[in-house]
Amino acid sequence: MKLKKMLYAGTFDPITSGHLDIIKRAAELADVLVVGVLTNSSKRCHFTLEERLEMIDIAVAGIDGVVVDSFGGLLADYAKDNNVDAVVRGLRATMDFEYELQMAQMNARLTGGEAETLFLMTDPKYSFVSSSLIKEVFFLGGEIKGLVPDEVYDYMCLHRKETK
Amino acid sequence: MKLKKMLYAGTFDPITSGHLDIIKRAAELADVLVVGVLTNSSKRCHFTLEERLEMIDIAVAGIDGVVVDSFGGLLADYAKDNNVDAVVRGLRATMDFEYELQMAQMNARLTGGEAETLFLMTDPKYSFVSSSLIKEVFFLGGEIKGLVPDEVYDYMCLHRKETK
Amino acid sequence: MKLKKMLYAGTFDPITSGHLDIIKRAAELADVLVVGVLTNSSKRCHFTLEERLEMIDIAVAGIDGVVVDSFGGLLADYAKDNNVDAVVRGLRATMDFEYELQMAQMNARLTGGEAETLFLMTDPKYSFVSSSLIKEVFFLGGEIKGLVPDEVYDYMCLHRKETK
Amino acid sequence: MKLKKMLYAGTFDPITSGHLDIIKRAAELADVLVVGVLTNSSKRCHFTLEERLEMIDIAVAGIDGVVVDSFGGLLADYAKDNNVDAVVRGLRATMDFEYELQMAQMNARLTGGEAETLFLMTDPKYSFVSSSLIKEVFFLGGEIKGLVPDEVYDYMCLHRKETK
Amino acid sequence: MKLKKMLYAGTFDPITSGHLDIIKRAAELADVLVVGVLTNSSKRCHFTLEERLEMIDIAVAGIDGVVVDSFGGLLADYAKDNNVDAVVRGLRATMDFEYELQMAQMNARLTGGEAETLFLMTDPKYSFVSSSLIKEVFFLGGEIKGLVPDEVYDYMCLHRKETK
Amino acid sequence: MKLKKMLYAGTFDPITSGHLDIIKRAAELADVLVVGVLTNSSKRCHFTLEERLEMIDIAVAGIDGVVVDSFGGLLADYAKDNNVDAVVRGLRATMDFEYELQMAQMNARLTGGEAETLFLMTDPKYSFVSSSLIKEVFFLGGEIKGLVPDEVYDYMCLHRKETK
Repeated sequence: MKLKKMLYAGTFDPITSGHLDIIKRAAELADVLVVGVLTNSSKRCHFTLEERLEMIDIAVAGIDGVVVDSFGGLLADYAKDNNVDAVVRGLRATMDFEYELQMAQMNARLTGGEAETLFLMTDPKYSFVSSSLIKEVFFLGGEIKGLVPDEVYDYMCLHRKETK
Repeated sequence: MKLKKMLYAGTFDPITSGHLDIIKRAAELADVLVVGVLTNSSKRCHFTLEERLEMIDIAVAGIDGVVVDSFGGLLADYAKDNNVDAVVRGLRATMDFEYELQMAQMNARLTGGEAETLFLMTDPKYSFVSSSLIKEVFFLGGEIKGLVPDEVYDYMCLHRKETK
Repeated sequence: MKLKKMLYAGTFDPITSGHLDIIKRAAELADVLVVGVLTNSSKRCHFTLEERLEMIDIAVAGIDGVVVDSFGGLLADYAKDNNVDAVVRGLRATMDFEYELQMAQMNARLTGGEAETLFLMTDPKYSFVSSSLIKEVFFLGGEIKGLVPDEVYDYMCLHRKETK
Repeated sequence: MKLKKMLYAGTFDPITSGHLDIIKRAAELADVLVVGVLTNSSKRCHFTLEERLEMIDIAVAGIDGVVVDSFGGLLADYAKDNNVDAVVRGLRATMDFEYELQMAQMNARLTGGEAETLFLMTDPKYSFVSSSLIKEVFFLGGEIKGLVPDEVYDYMCLHRKETK
Repeated sequence: MKLKKMLYAGTFDPITSGHLDIIKRAAELADVLVVGVLTNSSKRCHFTLEERLEMIDIAVAGIDGVVVDSFGGLLADYAKDNNVDAVVRGLRATMDFEYELQMAQMNARLTGGEAETLFLMTDPKYSFVSSSLIKEVFFLGGEIKGLVPDEVYDYMCLHRKETK
Repeated sequence: MKLKKMLYAGTFDPITSGHLDIIKRAAELADVLVVGVLTNSSKRCHFTLEERLEMIDIAVAGIDGVVVDSFGGLLADYAKDNNVDAVVRGLRATMDFEYELQMAQMNARLTGGEAETLFLMTDPKYSFVSSSLIKEVFFLGGEIKGLVPDEVYDYMCLHRKETK
């Protein structure tokens, strides 16, 4: 058997319905899908690492073969240290594509080709969804129901005061 | 085990070094990789189906788990009839991307989501290689050694008179 | 009142659910929306002009303010001769965008700025739909229900033998 | 009558000749065009809200049907609260396009489809003009005459000391 | 002295104002600029080779250092055989860019790096001008004055009957 | 002789193998190639101006006709003050392209057309290399040998403690 462990990494600030769609589809392809939360991204996050992990946990509950983890340092190092066979990424649009191409080529180099990067196309109905746009809309009082998993929506509403 | 059979489809007129790179990497991901030659593409081919199959056979000899086949009709039908778990595609550039996105979404619809489309980034050193450019250069007397697998290069030189 | 008459032109070979979505939204913006079928496009059409007009007629039945017409020659000339205030176009993706930009600038020049070009974004759920892809799938036996208006789907199935 | 009120929103820091071109063309399409200055954009502005409003006022003086306003919160909320029929946006290039597509789809969702987003292509002669590039050039002593409306140019020169 | 001879190649069917702008600017950079008309392009031309050469001759009359030539075969072979130091190309838009990147990399390979490819950005006021769009508009009776050099415009009007 | 002095400007934080490739190829085209380090870029640099100049000096040692300089203010002013005939830029991908187009058009305007902007395509093997990605990988302990010139690599390793 060849594709045992895949990694889906990001800041997930917060996890969106688009992320969850990729997770469900990627979990069909490998025995284990690690959802890996980056702890040292240059992006400043709104939610704490604990909140982001908590939201992912409630979103992926019930999907077989999904493991949630967090890590700092290089994605390529994490992949090598944990026998990751492939890194999975969602592609939305041309701008994603250029950046993703650059990262995939750098990671191929850093892992010596051991970890392949696989891209899945985002479902068109989530093509306009991003964590940053969701946060902007949410904190200005706009309705985001359906753009994040339902349980994450409840979590965000409940924690709105504390997290703001 | 989840990712058993993958399909890499195209006209392969002729198979290039870029195609072979994708085949080698995809063969690492699944138990069986079917290289499927399209027989009813709207693209007019220079090489006959037999020639294209012959060139693929000599190029993939020695790569474990690769099977060569040909088919007409819809890729989605072939995928469903043959229990294909995922279709693999190489991505080179923005223009590829738009077209590939469209095809991936149509195929997701036609297979009822049974066959996922996986994208691998083309190695940058083959980013300018396409079958049509190779043919144009070759038949105007330009040097294409290295842009197609070596055995395919020899085949093309040998068959130049007959195929022209 | 300023935006009286708009034009939505194309070959509509056949009209798709994406076209119909633009027609419905554009009809909300002007008093009259002319759906104009091009008779001398360089694109070779599968359906005759009569068939294309018939399919549009059944698709737009019941939408207020929509008129169906056909014309040859320059779109800019038709726009000037018929007091068209604006031309409406649907945008799907980057490749559309480049071409549409070119046409909009040429038409601005040819109409002396009298007819503005307005762009509406295609609904993401139709972003992978094009007339040519629909024809390819349909004539290879694939399911296209939902990608064209229901009445157009019935029409295509009924006329399949005759039109092939 | 259908297209009564349109909204053209931005930070206008400062208003450029490209903005003014869109305003003039959009004012031809609706009875009222609201130029809406965003007060809570994440972009840090060089000019104060008062200065930006003042520059817009002198630039749009004499164009019929143009109203200048400012607002915080979600554009979608402003559009719904003020019976805006359509939001107008200028498109310059591919990078604009991706972002604009995302915003248009989010706004369609937030307004329940009540406010359509209309795109106008930027005149090619202003395709390289942006507020941020103009500020960079201006404050390094470069000549920007013609890239902003003449009255805005005079205003900027006069207020250079105070605003720096 | 380093940049002695440059090549600007194309079908020029017909030469446009955008082409002429590139020719004038490129002629400033090298001692000799060869305008090279391709005789075996896969594109079907409307004008004969003689007509295309004639139009270029009248358009470039009076620009120092410009030589007009035609050639078949590979551009890379022509460049090597004629001691061309660099090939110049005009860039209009993203779609141009992808294709041009592919050709530049193939030509770098075929000339062994002897002929560099230099790109100049098209003047924005010609960004929507292409030979094929000009022909389409012209033969449908649209006004193209200004989009081709004035002498070429006169030539096209005079030869309209014969060339149609 | 026409192309005497060219300028290649940037922050070079640090100079990469991709930069060096452009420098070598550009030095073949003009008598003098000025590598100009920007001192007032809005980008915050990791390395000091002195360090960046030092790394460029060791990287370009031995390439004929290359001069290293630094400047503040507008690139267009530097070009005019120093009789620069052309500015050279490397192009990697679509996103570069849009930004570069904007800058080239602004600079054409600011120099009154005196300094042309020439673009060279980045070698595909450096297409994923950027200073910012190199820094991110390097300071997280990833291997960047080959992505920067060898002497720059040694310099970075030696100065790692001090610069961090």
